[in-house]
Amino acid sequence: MLERIKRLWSYLEEKGSYIEDSLGFLVSDPANRLYLSGFSGESGYLLLTPQKNWLLTDGRFTEQAREEAPDFEVVDVGREPLEKLGEVVARAGLRELYFEEEALTVSVYRRLEEAIKNWPQKPLLKPASKVVENLRAVKEPGEVGYIQQAVAIAEAAWEHILGYLKPGLKEKDIALELEYFMRKKGAAAVSFPVIVASGPRSAWPHGRAGDRTLKPGDLVVLDFGAVYQGYCSDLTRTVAIAPATEEQRRIYNAVLKAQEEALQALRAGLPGREVDALARRYLEEAGLGDYFSHGLGHGVGLNVHERPTLSWREEDPLPARAVVTVEPGVYIPGWGGIRIEDMVLVEEGGCRLLTKIDKGFLEI
Amino acid sequence: MLERIKRLWSYLEEKGSYIEDSLGFLVSDPANRLYLSGFSGESGYLLLTPQKNWLLTDGRFTEQAREEAPDFEVVDVGREPLEKLGEVVARAGLRELYFEEEALTVSVYRRLEEAIKNWPQKPLLKPASKVVENLRAVKEPGEVGYIQQAVAIAEAAWEHILGYLKPGLKEKDIALELEYFMRKKGAAAVSFPVIVASGPRSAWPHGRAGDRTLKPGDLVVLDFGAVYQGYCSDLTRTVAIAPATEEQRRIYNAVLKAQEEALQALRAGLPGREVDALARRYLEEAGLGDYFSHGLGHGVGLNVHERPTLSWREEDPLPARAVVTVEPGVYIPGWGGIRIEDMVLVEEGGCRLLTKIDKGFLEI
Repeated sequence: MLERIKRLWSYLEEKGSYIEDSLGFLVSDPANRLYLSGFSGESGYLLLTPQKNWLLTDGRFTEQAREEAPDFEVVDVGREPLEKLGEVVARAGLRELYFEEEALTVSVYRRLEEAIKNWPQKPLLKPASKVVENLRAVKEPGEVGYIQQAVAIAEAAWEHILGYLKPGLKEKDIALELEYFMRKKGAAAVSFPVIVASGPRSAWPHGRAGDRTLKPGDLVVLDFGAVYQGYCSDLTRTVAIAPATEEQRRIYNAVLKAQEEALQALRAGLPGREVDALARRYLEEAGLGDYFSHGLGHGVGLNVHERPTLSWREEDPLPARAVVTVEPGVYIPGWGGIRIEDMVLVEEGGCRLLTKIDKGFLEI
Repeated sequence: MLERIKRLWSYLEEKGSYIEDSLGFLVSDPANRLYLSGFSGESGYLLLTPQKNWLLTDGRFTEQAREEAPDFEVVDVGREPLEKLGEVVARAGLRELYFEEEALTVSVYRRLEEAIKNWPQKPLLKPASKVVENLRAVKEPGEVGYIQQAVAIAEAAWEHILGYLKPGLKEKDIALELEYFMRKKGAAAVSFPVIVASGPRSAWPHGRAGDRTLKPGDLVVLDFGAVYQGYCSDLTRTVAIAPATEEQRRIYNAVLKAQEEALQALRAGLPGREVDALARRYLEEAGLGDYFSHGLGHGVGLNVHERPTLSWREEDPLPARAVVTVEPGVYIPGWGGIRIEDMVLVEEGGCRLLTKIDKGFLEI
């Protein structure tokens, strides 16, 4: 953990901050808190300084925090968290305090500004954007190992569910079977509510499993993942319930080809938008561009959606050792949808597939 | 839904806002969005005005939004959500725009301020605090029905798990059994990750289920809930694994008595802090006050923690038809913890227990 905090200060220095003892960094994002401290409780702030690190939390979590975050001095905030934060800031002699602008609500920020007026030491508040998120984008070998394990659990669930799928089953029974299987295999949780979207509902890219039953001729999108040691996986496959149509097969193969084009090109140094553009261009040429209504992919780690993304918005070059999904999709209202999603590890000269199960067109 | 939106405008008017056609209310909190529109997707904004309501979301959710929220005009935000919001604000001719200060990050707020500079119509941004949350605190009969059903599912899981608990079981296997049972009984999800905290870990009020196995002499805190039709339940019981000690029994009964004192007094019109104080005073007199490290309870509905709360902070009188938990707890580091939690419907002259299962000391 202390290595990670060291990287945080180096990162800030590279970005032009002058690192001195009077500079603090307040962490409020839960995944960032876990990443830098090991504390897995639901509530609390980290206060990092170049010399020392504090973890502020309430009475529900102090015991747990002391056990999980031995590198931190744990402070029980009692009834007045902001007052207690002021005391620690004064002890640390902070003149400037970064806060995470994506992880502080306007309400908390306003209360923080008010509280500072009464603090013995009044630091200048400075917004920080995606700092720990950018550190987290580059995975350590141990993290890749956990992710690979989370992928393996999802893959095992996929093999299992293939023997289970048949017409007449309810979407939500399939979802529960997937989830139960992954939990039995060691997943601490699912990385998001399982998506099983069948028939016309498969045109909802994020349609949660509902009461609809599978019918002959349906397309069924199954999108799910496991959490293992805090790390997520994310896997999508689409199958057809027999009898499949030629059009289903044709569009399926176009989506698959779009994914392959992206995988072929994906490597460290390429901006995420260029990878997205490759898959998008392929689908446009196949006359399907209007139906690809989301980005091509996203980073995966402690969160199932994190940095970096593969979307038109992402201009930064992809770092080596990022883990991302590649998931083109086509959604035609009324007709149905098809998505194919794998996870990869970004490397210098290319990328390595973490998802290894088959993805040819499947009629069940 | 339109009834609820009407109540929103009445509420704002009561609080002193002058309601005119040029006033808008931007909803960004996911539960508030669901409550006012019926749209259950994970992303989007509602823009409410006295004449008309819009739902802005992206291509992943537009299909779903049109189906789930027929009272709203659905707008696909495409790649520039804030630009699109500006167009709608101009069409509506808004001069003032409330936003939810607990549900907008500093980052989004800053981008919104920037975007407004380029909008054809430039509304004044006004922070709104807990507006929809306060409406949601008062439950409609249909909502109470769903909550009662969510409670019943959790109660059935409790009866089931009593026949399952024994020394040697892992906390997380117990948690999975509870969850699987609830899902099979119709829960869409658990309302939070199941807590099974045994032995010394029971002194962690929010200890998630882990790898520890139950041992003779343990206290075991089980805290779990179901989601039914979007509504949550929340239930805690603590049992002793034989042989129990006299001290376990004595402290258990003190916690139970503290809960009963609170339940006896709880009624609409009483501030939450007074109810909390009653239970707290009882535990203080029993010499256990230092070990009751959290508030007495919280509202439950679309979120498992919502308005109103029963804590020292809550000065407002409790509204009739609020649904709250009453959950005193005692946590002694190294020794263990005990918590007993029921849900009640707040009424004019008192309160009605929604949780009906037994809560006497139980040695297994």
